[in-house]
Amino acid sequence: MKIAASIVLAATAAVLSTPASAQFAKPEDAVKYRQSVMTVMSTHFGRIGAMANGKAPYDAKAAIDNAQIVAAMAKLPWPGFSADTEKVSVQNRAKPEVWSNAAKFKEDGDHLVSETGKLLAAAQTNSLDNLKTAFASTGKACKSCHDDFRKEAK
Amino acid sequence: MKIAASIVLAATAAVLSTPASAQFAKPEDAVKYRQSVMTVMSTHFGRIGAMANGKAPYDAKAAIDNAQIVAAMAKLPWPGFSADTEKVSVQNRAKPEVWSNAAKFKEDGDHLVSETGKLLAAAQTNSLDNLKTAFASTGKACKSCHDDFRKEAK
Repeated sequence: MKIAASIVLAATAAVLSTPASAQFAKPEDAVKYRQSVMTVMSTHFGRIGAMANGKAPYDAKAAIDNAQIVAAMAKLPWPGFSADTEKVSVQNRAKPEVWSNAAKFKEDGDHLVSETGKLLAAAQTNSLDNLKTAFASTGKACKSCHDDFRKEAK
Repeated sequence: MKIAASIVLAATAAVLSTPASAQFAKPEDAVKYRQSVMTVMSTHFGRIGAMANGKAPYDAKAAIDNAQIVAAMAKLPWPGFSADTEKVSVQNRAKPEVWSNAAKFKEDGDHLVSETGKLLAAAQTNSLDNLKTAFASTGKACKSCHDDFRKEAK
């Protein structure tokens, strides 16, 4: 688990240090991209949640498949929050704090990558109990960041 | 390459045979999900294209990272084309042929998964020439399916 977490953290550092500029042709593309990543992540995280909460039968292979997608998606959205998207007109729910408190936002992003790496490791133990624990912990990482950096839905 | 392709095809069969029903709460969610997957796939495929077309410097590691995301995304969108999304009111570009010619659509989906598996294998050879060839071949798979099953953008 420790080794897996180190690899995940190293991968994160690499991803998050990629310059945000020049990755998207337009700021609108960056917003659409990060929202798309979140939709894919949330869909597959929700499927793990259904198993963790007993709303769907536990399927160890499906849990791993879903956790792999969640862990992969967690690394991606951050360059989509480039500075030129702060004032973009396309509808989005990013609070100004994404840019005014960028250090905390990065910390929360790193934390999500770490938690989703642990979620995948937990799924790979083929234990529903481990999956439940890691799902709850990952869910806290989602919520904490959303509380600080995402506006309420209208 | 043959073994890798077999694994990819086996994975595809597993993914595509998952029942589409009950994976999404609402048909609108299925549409949003499949569109999001396509946005993520297209973004990362475009980054490989930039390298293949000489618009960005060749970076072997970035090519692999991008190809991994493309290959993972290629497996996902198909359950999002569930029958209950054919008449959905939310804007989308799926032609009626997605459902009236479902066998060909599935064949094209399987082909994309196969091609993106080969794209990843090509990226992992660390050869720009191999990447270029596989990028062109994967791009043909995208276009061929879009020609038959996706409406023109308005």
